[in-house]
Amino acid sequence: MDIRIGLLGCGTVGAGVIDLMRKRSNKISDMTGMRPSITRVLVRDLTKERGIDLDGAMLTTNPDDILSDPDIRIVIETIGGIEPARSYILTALKAGKHVITANKDLIALHGSEIIETADAAGVDILYEAAVGGAIPLIRPLKESLTANDITDLLGIINGTTNYILTQMTETGADFSEALKEAQDLGYAEADPTSDVDGLDAARKLTILATIGFHAKVNLSEVEVSGIRSVTAADVKYASEIGCVIKLLASGTDRNGILSLRVSPTLVPKQHPLAGVSGSYNALFVRGDASGDLMFFGRGAGSLPTASSVVGDVIEALRNMRLNVSGRVSQMVMPHKTVDPDGGSALRHYLRMSVVDQPGVFAKIAGLCGDEGLSMETVLQKRASKGTAEVVIVTHEVKPEVIRRVVEAFRQMPSIKSIDCVMPVQPMTE
Amino acid sequence: MDIRIGLLGCGTVGAGVIDLMRKRSNKISDMTGMRPSITRVLVRDLTKERGIDLDGAMLTTNPDDILSDPDIRIVIETIGGIEPARSYILTALKAGKHVITANKDLIALHGSEIIETADAAGVDILYEAAVGGAIPLIRPLKESLTANDITDLLGIINGTTNYILTQMTETGADFSEALKEAQDLGYAEADPTSDVDGLDAARKLTILATIGFHAKVNLSEVEVSGIRSVTAADVKYASEIGCVIKLLASGTDRNGILSLRVSPTLVPKQHPLAGVSGSYNALFVRGDASGDLMFFGRGAGSLPTASSVVGDVIEALRNMRLNVSGRVSQMVMPHKTVDPDGGSALRHYLRMSVVDQPGVFAKIAGLCGDEGLSMETVLQKRASKGTAEVVIVTHEVKPEVIRRVVEAFRQMPSIKSIDCVMPVQPMTE
Repeated sequence: MDIRIGLLGCGTVGAGVIDLMRKRSNKISDMTGMRPSITRVLVRDLTKERGIDLDGAMLTTNPDDILSDPDIRIVIETIGGIEPARSYILTALKAGKHVITANKDLIALHGSEIIETADAAGVDILYEAAVGGAIPLIRPLKESLTANDITDLLGIINGTTNYILTQMTETGADFSEALKEAQDLGYAEADPTSDVDGLDAARKLTILATIGFHAKVNLSEVEVSGIRSVTAADVKYASEIGCVIKLLASGTDRNGILSLRVSPTLVPKQHPLAGVSGSYNALFVRGDASGDLMFFGRGAGSLPTASSVVGDVIEALRNMRLNVSGRVSQMVMPHKTVDPDGGSALRHYLRMSVVDQPGVFAKIAGLCGDEGLSMETVLQKRASKGTAEVVIVTHEVKPEVIRRVVEAFRQMPSIKSIDCVMPVQPMTE
Repeated sequence: MDIRIGLLGCGTVGAGVIDLMRKRSNKISDMTGMRPSITRVLVRDLTKERGIDLDGAMLTTNPDDILSDPDIRIVIETIGGIEPARSYILTALKAGKHVITANKDLIALHGSEIIETADAAGVDILYEAAVGGAIPLIRPLKESLTANDITDLLGIINGTTNYILTQMTETGADFSEALKEAQDLGYAEADPTSDVDGLDAARKLTILATIGFHAKVNLSEVEVSGIRSVTAADVKYASEIGCVIKLLASGTDRNGILSLRVSPTLVPKQHPLAGVSGSYNALFVRGDASGDLMFFGRGAGSLPTASSVVGDVIEALRNMRLNVSGRVSQMVMPHKTVDPDGGSALRHYLRMSVVDQPGVFAKIAGLCGDEGLSMETVLQKRASKGTAEVVIVTHEVKPEVIRRVVEAFRQMPSIKSIDCVMPVQPMTE
């Protein structure tokens, strides 16, 4: 059977999808008994050069040419962002079309609405490419690891910040230099907010936690801090205590109480995530039966993302042939409580600027003692013009205690500023 | 709907399956709309203590109590080995029962017969646990990465040899000491042949290559060498050139020409597989669209293996509910040619014992030159009683050339023995 596919958007990912669908057309026919082809492509500019061989007649600037065409059975969305992608996808689903998307923002913020619409229409909504690019994550969590209660998700799921932090580690560059280089190379956008402030990772964590913890997770429940406060000095101090700095997305489920966090984190150099560098992504998963698992691969890019999108197209085709679209439903998720104390106790790294005079250390130590915070290491790193830089590594302490101590430090006249606060990831067994 | 399950075998894995099925019964009902329960367990000894709470009435020594009971819809096989597991599974499939198995030996040697029987009967045959224990490998290759032509599979897929080699690396122990320790701890069997001679890894590679390369692969097409020839000295010399020794299973598909090998291999310390230690498994996959991927986790053990078995039970239940058992068929595999030259050129490590007298080096070098083998490093490591130990690391050369050179070395009177030959794994990009 011939199956017509409409493609919304023809940027980097869209062009990769066209390319890969063409290359694999025979294999897909063999595997599914269907002959799919992309027959219509929605673009904003009909004249733009896209680096692939495209029949001009396929292009359109009118979304209805795809959404209202009853012969188009599958819609692939690669526009990104919330609107108009959301409206297009809802229209397609209601019209009985299967939808494949790589849109993490949309699934993180409007996943329930979209999945419920797909379930009501009895069609597939598939989004393997939304998290981790080419790495199979959604399907393993939804289908392979179902025998487990997943207790921990821990990952490097934003390639831009991982590239920046890797550069800072390898070259000693400061944040702004590494960001500029990433922008020059096209790894970071002109407005890097969504990546460097941790929002992109938080959206992906929302999607992973929803599936992994089998719970309705809201983006607002993720505690987010980005990497702007990380300096070359932090990278150096981290190295001195055997760690590298990574932007980690962390989710835990302890007997139904969730804790969700995106934060720059000190990761011991022997930890499997410490070696994940550049634009690679990795997700560490702990299940109560499986034990520790890790999935690693390219988190972005034209063909890696297309690999997951086209894999989903093949799944949709198989489901169509068997008449079981929407085979693995994703509804009926309970809401789980989020730990108000921010999860389990961890060691923490604090860097601050203090007045360089006698007695300041004693005051800091006294306050920590009052709050029940035990210090593992205190280092006075350097001093100039009456200001000393102090780095403290604490023993394990609940994040909530750290927040209280930082507040109290901010009230102390002898502490000029708290410049960087990061948890330290414990080693896995 | 109540679904009765029969379990064949109640050893380590079988007991884990019973335990996990009980723990997850509510979750499985929620996910599948079915209420499965293990109602019959085939054992050899009714009186043996199994460390789990079992209703004695469930146990039987008669396989027909499971295979001929029409109320039993799913059979889980955890006996292992070829017979009687093969006959039991074929009987169950022909009777219309879905079969879940962790039996890599059987799938590697009789996979075609079993899969064809399942397809003819319209039932599921699922075996995620056969390779990589808890790590999702079979389903990602069969369902997530289908948009790719897989070009490389490279993995540590035998936990016993990985434990032994890790011990040799960490403690400097020789092979026989490390093997004895592994046996004492229950990580290696009394007869360790299948593990240490590489057969277990070769069987698993056969299964992975069949799915990944979409080809009928025979076990006899895998070139196998085990780890018995690896000495504490090899581990030390490997370390000197920045490598660790791992038993790697390697498969490549170069435009339809396969190369399949299991061999102890020098792996650069920065390679992602170098850090996979102890009883962990890892599989590195390269797809033409996805780029490099790695999957990591526990390769064996009661609950990790049960994690994959019970995941397959949930898949079988979902397929039953939708009436699409045998959903992803595995037939129609072409046979692909295996490269007679043993695959692409690699650096090689050779350790040999030579007569300690002037001119021997010149002879070795001359022979290498005649055969077109270029040496990167030659080290005379130590000498005693007229014998010198020589280690050569070659430049990249086809395995077929290495075989020819080793044969020629064996004819040279001044070379007493060729003691160890291993390829050197190149770094990934």
